[in-house]
Amino acid sequence: MTVEPRGRLIGVGTGPGDPELLTLKAVRALGEADVLAHFAKRGNNGNARASVAGHLKPGIVELPLLYPVTTEIDKDHADYRTQITGFYEESAAAIAAQLDAGRTVAVLSEGDPLFFGSYMHLHVRLAHRYPTEVIPGVTAMSGCWSQVGVPIVQGDDVLTVIPGTMNPFEMTRRLADTDAAVIMKVGRNLPKIRKALADAGKLDRAIYVERGTMDATSSCRLADKADDRAPYFSIVLVAGWAARS
Amino acid sequence: MTVEPRGRLIGVGTGPGDPELLTLKAVRALGEADVLAHFAKRGNNGNARASVAGHLKPGIVELPLLYPVTTEIDKDHADYRTQITGFYEESAAAIAAQLDAGRTVAVLSEGDPLFFGSYMHLHVRLAHRYPTEVIPGVTAMSGCWSQVGVPIVQGDDVLTVIPGTMNPFEMTRRLADTDAAVIMKVGRNLPKIRKALADAGKLDRAIYVERGTMDATSSCRLADKADDRAPYFSIVLVAGWAARS
Repeated sequence: MTVEPRGRLIGVGTGPGDPELLTLKAVRALGEADVLAHFAKRGNNGNARASVAGHLKPGIVELPLLYPVTTEIDKDHADYRTQITGFYEESAAAIAAQLDAGRTVAVLSEGDPLFFGSYMHLHVRLAHRYPTEVIPGVTAMSGCWSQVGVPIVQGDDVLTVIPGTMNPFEMTRRLADTDAAVIMKVGRNLPKIRKALADAGKLDRAIYVERGTMDATSSCRLADKADDRAPYFSIVLVAGWAARS
Repeated sequence: MTVEPRGRLIGVGTGPGDPELLTLKAVRALGEADVLAHFAKRGNNGNARASVAGHLKPGIVELPLLYPVTTEIDKDHADYRTQITGFYEESAAAIAAQLDAGRTVAVLSEGDPLFFGSYMHLHVRLAHRYPTEVIPGVTAMSGCWSQVGVPIVQGDDVLTVIPGTMNPFEMTRRLADTDAAVIMKVGRNLPKIRKALADAGKLDRAIYVERGTMDATSSCRLADKADDRAPYFSIVLVAGWAARS
């Protein structure tokens, strides 16, 4: 009886957007992988795929995983949950087929794979069945506070990372109860975020960053932002330590 | 009248410990810097300096910044504050002298420079006076949750980053009031952290990681750790999403 060769699964963090913020370890993994999988919306390959161009093994097989629905529809709707769960199951099966054939599969993840990354939906389905490695990446929030040069936490500061989808009362409570805050997934939640920050007495310290570390990036004090237009992946920062220095 | 040449200040995140987790941007900056500054304890060059060996420009000038006191004495003591503030002032002056001479100075920071990094004490003293860039790094916490393969947050999870120095009642309250938690600066605070997690009903989900991504790393369920010995920079993780998957 021969043992089947089995490939390795590698979750690769590609960082916040600037292709130079890939790690050496990510570059090595991409140069060794037989198959490159990445999540994308139809018609848009995404930042992760763009970041790794130039680092891939010649002849690498591409396995795009195309979301059946967008991320901005109501996540509590039963149809959404059924569709997205089926999609993750099918994606995991497609990757498992490659791993069973002995191929090493790199799955790209913007930022850090296990920090709000879609990769983790594959990880929980595959990591107990195949040799698996996760290569951490620079998070979008690190990219944002570094770009604007704002020390986010120091000493005994508490940092709270809050999804922009949170209800306004809870958001206000949490903002009032922390030294530093990062609000993710801003998008159409911006008016609510603005009000929650004002109610928590922290609007004047909030900084808005969109497309952090990318070519088309922009940032400003949130209080100075005249409109409420924001990409889904924009971020709002409230520095802890800066207020005391 | 001639304009004096002025060097650039670069805060360089060196990542969680594994030298392969340096970014391409950090490697480029280290290859271009004239002066390499790094914080260290006397007799111990530290992980950041070890991570960058092999990437430095030949003939680079080393500027070690030696802490006058260790990080584990009482930070609220007036003597400590006076000593450490004087140390940061002197360090900033030493770097300013290099910048004034037109040299580019890279300041190493383990993990990410503006996330609990000593670099920020220089940043707030120098960034308004000299051209400055901060290169984000992979944080220690990302290194830890990637190493143990634990998805830390997903979807609408809240993440709270808590310093191990916090008083036990507040620590328990915050642990009970979050989906996911990262407890930094564990060290001799471990017995208190253990009790706070138990009181918050989360001890069974807590994972202990020391020297994450380094050669001598180890990790286990905190409930399975038989002793309370822990290095200062060890980390405790409580995953949010994992509890629901």
